[in-house]
Amino acid sequence: LSTPQRTQVEGQDVRVTPDPPVKCLEVAVEPPAADRLRADDERLRDALSLQHHVAKVTMDTGALRSLSPLLREQNWTVEVCLRGEECISVRIPGRPVLGLAVDLGTTKIAGYLVDLETGHTLVSQGVMNPQIAYGEDLIARITRTLGSPVEAKLMQRIILAALNGLAEDLCSRVNSQTSDILEEVVVGNTAMHHLLLRLPTEQLVMAPYVPAVAHALDVRARDLQLSLAAGAYVHFLPNVAAFVGADHVAMILGTQLWRRDDTALALDIGTNTEICLAHGGRLSSVSCASGPAFEGAHIRHGMRAAAGAIEHLSYRDNELEYQTIDDVPAVGLCGSGILDALAQLHLAGVVDRHGRMQEHPRVRNADGQLEFVFLDERERDGGPAITITQRDIRELQLAKGAIRAGIQVLLQAENLKEDDLDEVLIAGAFGSYISIDSAIAIGMLPGLPMHRYRQVGNAAGTGARLTLLSREQRREAWSIASRVKYIELASVAGFETLFAASTYLGEYHVT
Amino acid sequence: LSTPQRTQVEGQDVRVTPDPPVKCLEVAVEPPAADRLRADDERLRDALSLQHHVAKVTMDTGALRSLSPLLREQNWTVEVCLRGEECISVRIPGRPVLGLAVDLGTTKIAGYLVDLETGHTLVSQGVMNPQIAYGEDLIARITRTLGSPVEAKLMQRIILAALNGLAEDLCSRVNSQTSDILEEVVVGNTAMHHLLLRLPTEQLVMAPYVPAVAHALDVRARDLQLSLAAGAYVHFLPNVAAFVGADHVAMILGTQLWRRDDTALALDIGTNTEICLAHGGRLSSVSCASGPAFEGAHIRHGMRAAAGAIEHLSYRDNELEYQTIDDVPAVGLCGSGILDALAQLHLAGVVDRHGRMQEHPRVRNADGQLEFVFLDERERDGGPAITITQRDIRELQLAKGAIRAGIQVLLQAENLKEDDLDEVLIAGAFGSYISIDSAIAIGMLPGLPMHRYRQVGNAAGTGARLTLLSREQRREAWSIASRVKYIELASVAGFETLFAASTYLGEYHVT
Repeated sequence: LSTPQRTQVEGQDVRVTPDPPVKCLEVAVEPPAADRLRADDERLRDALSLQHHVAKVTMDTGALRSLSPLLREQNWTVEVCLRGEECISVRIPGRPVLGLAVDLGTTKIAGYLVDLETGHTLVSQGVMNPQIAYGEDLIARITRTLGSPVEAKLMQRIILAALNGLAEDLCSRVNSQTSDILEEVVVGNTAMHHLLLRLPTEQLVMAPYVPAVAHALDVRARDLQLSLAAGAYVHFLPNVAAFVGADHVAMILGTQLWRRDDTALALDIGTNTEICLAHGGRLSSVSCASGPAFEGAHIRHGMRAAAGAIEHLSYRDNELEYQTIDDVPAVGLCGSGILDALAQLHLAGVVDRHGRMQEHPRVRNADGQLEFVFLDERERDGGPAITITQRDIRELQLAKGAIRAGIQVLLQAENLKEDDLDEVLIAGAFGSYISIDSAIAIGMLPGLPMHRYRQVGNAAGTGARLTLLSREQRREAWSIASRVKYIELASVAGFETLFAASTYLGEYHVT
Repeated sequence: LSTPQRTQVEGQDVRVTPDPPVKCLEVAVEPPAADRLRADDERLRDALSLQHHVAKVTMDTGALRSLSPLLREQNWTVEVCLRGEECISVRIPGRPVLGLAVDLGTTKIAGYLVDLETGHTLVSQGVMNPQIAYGEDLIARITRTLGSPVEAKLMQRIILAALNGLAEDLCSRVNSQTSDILEEVVVGNTAMHHLLLRLPTEQLVMAPYVPAVAHALDVRARDLQLSLAAGAYVHFLPNVAAFVGADHVAMILGTQLWRRDDTALALDIGTNTEICLAHGGRLSSVSCASGPAFEGAHIRHGMRAAAGAIEHLSYRDNELEYQTIDDVPAVGLCGSGILDALAQLHLAGVVDRHGRMQEHPRVRNADGQLEFVFLDERERDGGPAITITQRDIRELQLAKGAIRAGIQVLLQAENLKEDDLDEVLIAGAFGSYISIDSAIAIGMLPGLPMHRYRQVGNAAGTGARLTLLSREQRREAWSIASRVKYIELASVAGFETLFAASTYLGEYHVT
């Protein structure tokens, strides 16, 4: 059994020359005296002008609150953190210069604590999105908030609490404090962006489906009750469409897809799968409602990627081999295992190209439907069998069909064939773990040579870090958002037929 | 008995061409459609650019929260309120365009609701500063907050609650809402400024006495929990010194003292009395610790200006005439009445120039000290007599001496004599009610011809309104703050002697 390459960017460094939006300057301020009674802030301005030729500064009130005591404690030498022409923090000289990049997913939140001077990622961490308790999918969460400001505030508060907790955890792991964080970048899908900022969401879920806000935003962290440096900002990258968010922009930046002049595809597979095609210097994107099947939801023995989940399996010559997370006894199938399972059953002829389960020694009827038994009750010491049911297969066909139809729409719009793709980049946590072989075998991905595929890990997180570290990369992200041509699948002529054809297993062909 | 002229600016209009920092533009936004899926904010930007040639806009998050529902409710036409390049509010077209000017005094808060388009003051109102419950004078309030962030937050919260209440009252009187207020200007002394913004105050009350912050500030109202339009700002005019605040700058602007090329003096009499001398195009200022005697505090039968307070009196040929507020029976003496009382007693020879009370049929010994009886127990139907005690006179000598010494220091610094003063402007609520005659009689003010005196009412409130209405006036205020030469009385050579000489009643002469 070949273990797929696990290309993770988590914790890896991004390659960019640091030019962050916040710079820190040490300033020696003249103490006041009977003949020098100008205010502390005025003498700080004098010193900034004389010592650093910084003449025009606005001072954040939060930063001003710490100035007077700090000057006196620090013997009149302090560090001033400037963001453009604004002083966002006054602090003890020599503190860490930190930034926080956050990839805010529907299910998971990934945080990266970055040294803004060296560009190094010091530490990273993933936590669950606590909104899950209020709705597995985004539509459920949005529905809760519609017409209820109280629910909208609750949704916002729990996500902000999670972000504060994440920042604290990350900082404590490097013996620093959240007040050392001078800038934060958040990327997420449009719905998470709106829920976090408590922006109206109704127009996201009602035709014709548009974001309230797509433009990039700088929001004072304090205004969101996020605890960073006194006057620090949170930068939100721009959204593209109601279901193509800033995380997609960050992925395009993180994969460098925007730079390419060949033909390449980048996908981030999730409950929604966003796909971008670069061709002839143009970028076009779609969002596919692939559903939660690949996160283990709505699958009989599906589960999240956790200890005991079968993450890979092969079934050849009636021989089952599998590998579980943490090598503990199997308790279910996570996304990559489910994908392998379907691929293996199809290749073994147990499931035909229509998705129909055939007669087979391991296929049995249970609760009125057929199921293929990977591990039976005996093999699980009396525990429930681990199976794939006929209904699971239908669910997976819809998921993979949505993704494949999205790819085909993008190719058709540029008049391309699959084979014209020079490279396909698979981003995201799930995408990092799947067997490309299996994805090709069931027809979720085009049948291209393996070397044209690359699994790039959390490219959205990489993009977030790039825009945290580099003002040029941030401008690039803004430009990407306006360059991306969004294609609404529902308005594509013949999409229903295309989607139906895409649900077939195996090689792709429109019936 | 001559009634002094009551020159009040409250409610009067200020004369300036309105050019407020916030402008409102009506914008018709294209509705979204299947082939027009750009976000609401992006289509608003398109419309602003096309219809108003406004290309570069940042949007406040608060303003963005109302955009999407409002566009749909208002049939895609909304009003955008721009402050420079920032959209601070999106609202129903045609709402009132209001501004709020606040003169934040130690004792009283005056609010003026202004129509930013016409420049008219719609309604004004004074309320007590609720911090009084936590300390009559500023030093007491500051002392509470030192080393106690909880007390500092409390001090801030109660003043903010008062400002919110004031805004609500003013708006309800013209059938509008606080969300119609698009800009607020607050002027106050440096201590009130710092307490409101929760800035450090320790350096205000410890030598060498400097403000934490003097520079003008724009603070988001939301950041202070002030309820105005979504993204509205509160502008704080600059301070000059620890005891010369933004209200002094506003007074200089409101009296137009800064424009003069003759020689003029402007005073705002209060617990602290700030005085500015304009001469040869220069401005110099002092702050005098005149104490609360003129507010009726620390005076045996003193009281605030309220119903029943004797506000004016004459005592000639053993005949007492007096006038009470609201013409109800007398219950005590307010500041202007106290000033008259001392002047009349001095002129009648009952109190000599040293402040010593002489023998007189109406002078009696009570509780070990002499007192002059204006109304005895019989005249008050058995109630306590209304008197002026020897101790009251000492208190008043200190108060008037502080003010007069301040005037003399300013004149000396410019090598001027009293008679060189072309005009003396008396600002502030107390200054509006006093008899200039009396103030001259006791030697609080120089013995100039009456026509050189002008009582100008709440000039600080006028200055606040000017800077609310006009960006040019705002720039002028900033310039005034940097032009004012602050003279610290404690560091003036021979100040003690000068002060002692200034406590004598009657004509001024240094002993």
